[in-house]
Amino acid sequence: MISVQKAKNIILSKTQDFGTEEIPFIQSVGRILKEDIVADRDFPPFNRVAMDGIAINFSYFKKGQRNFNIEGIQPAGSEQLTMQKSENCIEVMTGAVLPNNCDTVIRYEDVIINNGIATITVDIIKDKQNIHVKGSDKTQGQLLIHKNIVISPAEIGVLATVGKSMIKVAKQPKVMIISTGDELVEVDENPLAHQIRRSNVYTLVALLKELNIFSETAHITDDKTILKEKINNYLQQYDVLLFSGAVSKGKFDFLPEVLSELGVKKLFHKVAQRPGKPFWFGTSDALNISEQHVYQNKKNKTVAFAFPGNPVSTFVNCLVYFYPWLKKSIGISSEEKTAILTEDVNFKPNLTYFLQVKIENTNGQVFATPIRGNGSGDLASLTKADGFLELPKTTKNEFKQGSVYPIIRYKR
Amino acid sequence: MISVQKAKNIILSKTQDFGTEEIPFIQSVGRILKEDIVADRDFPPFNRVAMDGIAINFSYFKKGQRNFNIEGIQPAGSEQLTMQKSENCIEVMTGAVLPNNCDTVIRYEDVIINNGIATITVDIIKDKQNIHVKGSDKTQGQLLIHKNIVISPAEIGVLATVGKSMIKVAKQPKVMIISTGDELVEVDENPLAHQIRRSNVYTLVALLKELNIFSETAHITDDKTILKEKINNYLQQYDVLLFSGAVSKGKFDFLPEVLSELGVKKLFHKVAQRPGKPFWFGTSDALNISEQHVYQNKKNKTVAFAFPGNPVSTFVNCLVYFYPWLKKSIGISSEEKTAILTEDVNFKPNLTYFLQVKIENTNGQVFATPIRGNGSGDLASLTKADGFLELPKTTKNEFKQGSVYPIIRYKR
Repeated sequence: MISVQKAKNIILSKTQDFGTEEIPFIQSVGRILKEDIVADRDFPPFNRVAMDGIAINFSYFKKGQRNFNIEGIQPAGSEQLTMQKSENCIEVMTGAVLPNNCDTVIRYEDVIINNGIATITVDIIKDKQNIHVKGSDKTQGQLLIHKNIVISPAEIGVLATVGKSMIKVAKQPKVMIISTGDELVEVDENPLAHQIRRSNVYTLVALLKELNIFSETAHITDDKTILKEKINNYLQQYDVLLFSGAVSKGKFDFLPEVLSELGVKKLFHKVAQRPGKPFWFGTSDALNISEQHVYQNKKNKTVAFAFPGNPVSTFVNCLVYFYPWLKKSIGISSEEKTAILTEDVNFKPNLTYFLQVKIENTNGQVFATPIRGNGSGDLASLTKADGFLELPKTTKNEFKQGSVYPIIRYKR
Repeated sequence: MISVQKAKNIILSKTQDFGTEEIPFIQSVGRILKEDIVADRDFPPFNRVAMDGIAINFSYFKKGQRNFNIEGIQPAGSEQLTMQKSENCIEVMTGAVLPNNCDTVIRYEDVIINNGIATITVDIIKDKQNIHVKGSDKTQGQLLIHKNIVISPAEIGVLATVGKSMIKVAKQPKVMIISTGDELVEVDENPLAHQIRRSNVYTLVALLKELNIFSETAHITDDKTILKEKINNYLQQYDVLLFSGAVSKGKFDFLPEVLSELGVKKLFHKVAQRPGKPFWFGTSDALNISEQHVYQNKKNKTVAFAFPGNPVSTFVNCLVYFYPWLKKSIGISSEEKTAILTEDVNFKPNLTYFLQVKIENTNGQVFATPIRGNGSGDLASLTKADGFLELPKTTKNEFKQGSVYPIIRYKR
């Protein structure tokens, strides 16, 4: 049995690069940007009028002139006008190019217009006011967005502005989620007395969708021959296999044995944690050349995360191990977050304890309050909590109110 | 000009119920649950074996017996066996039904098996240990999940377990996002010197997708007749119109006028805030009966959010006003979050200031550090920040390091 930290280290040493792909920018929210985005022109690309009003040549205002003949109008989206007489003005709209021969904009609120003459009604005007100067935000060629960030709606606007209608993002791994256990029936079936419905695979599908991974699912019966044949197939076709169940000491827990027989090397089995202890992790070798020919999309090693079958165990292990593995694989770091424990917690076993908590943000602080569940089989308790507080493996029994621990949040 | 709080109050008084729809449960993450979920049977539905090992009748252990003949094996997913002789044992697997006539499970680690006899190697065994008792998590008919919550992966597992393959969720409004401004060209076009690419509508599309709304977009030229005709059409077909631009004092800012002529009642125009001041908000009356006949899916009022056209203004106003309106409309509350300002900020105008900040979580606290942007036109600054700190409208100029303010986060 190894520690949580050791398990994390092993898993993070087995990350993979799945390459990149080009997708329409508008579909890229949540994906990882894989190209630097630079300004294709200055921003703003011209001296941009920042207020609706009139544009003048400031020197005439400075000399005392207050009445300006309106020579024309410069709407947004029109070619730049040139003011013919420097003592005149041009009506200008927000977003328009500042006309030639003008250098200052006075908003309509500070002007009275009558018979084609604009009279400025204020005494204080700043030279070059209300102009968003060409290149003042960014100059052509300047870096706007670094690669290796998660694309959010904020980036979408920038991508549109610089004309990146197609965008290079990290490719996601191909993931197969596999349930085992003869007690399982489908969601739309009526289970017999000794059966229950399949649920963990769907929880995992949903957890992976949060990472923008569209996974597939399969169920394999507790028969060693069938298990081996099917998993052998999946190993050729998928980058990641996620299992739920069949990793304990049961007579039909063939998984570790089968994976090992298929060349998936065990890197660890069992982690000093609760819940989720019997977690098995391994990787297969890369395919040989002839296999690569058959499975063109499959060149990497396959990574196998075999989670224990209890709902809370599967859930927490996916968050604690698969999430960081995926993030590191596609090129982003996971920022550690922390929360303040709101009550004393006693936990005797010398294991890392993933405590289910309700999270509250008050007064700039993040508080975590324990939710009383009924052990790792109590699925409904997950819906009452927002996350897990990671209480470290220690020989002391008590975790004190007010102390701060890492938090893994799964609800917002 | 009204205050931010007043604007929020008006908007939240104009929420609407868009009804419900049934969708496959696996597609429901992020949607709002609109039915209470109850246990369809006890959980666990039987006395469930919680460890791989042997099941015995505890009274025999208590009497001192340590060797137990193995009478059979009870795998998960098999019908319940009955132990014929009470002094025997049955091998049991995690997830299996506890056999009849057994009441205690001893894990394999505490047993030696030889020639069909299991010998218990430990002295302390608790009556009924390692059994997840029928109904101990939930009893049949008990409420598992309240309606009006956001469905997360945690709920997906529960929905699967109780067999809800189809699930009732809040219907989303039909939203049309409209840009105006003749300076705008498409993302894949090369703008002329006086033109820029359309970006705000795409930012809004992405912001709405975060709320699971799949919106449509349109661009209308700065021509009053065309604007009026098109908007009239959209008013019949959409629940919400979001505009970006054409709400200021410009000669071609026809929007408030056109909306008013089309019967969209202005509820306010201009809010005491920076950025985003010239925000216009209104609602149209419900359609009359004959119109309802033509537009069968359109019975509600249409709500019009007309945001100022600067990128940061559109962005912040969507978060501050549209997000809470949508959440209240579909039945969930928005929890207010707060953060601690890390440096002194000076801001003179008597306006609510939405300050762009980088958010950090350290030691159980949430810190907000100002990002220096270049005003409301500086789109790239949005990508450097994680959210907006809402500094209240006040006559004092200074916001002190260490003080706590509401935070609107848009990056995770």
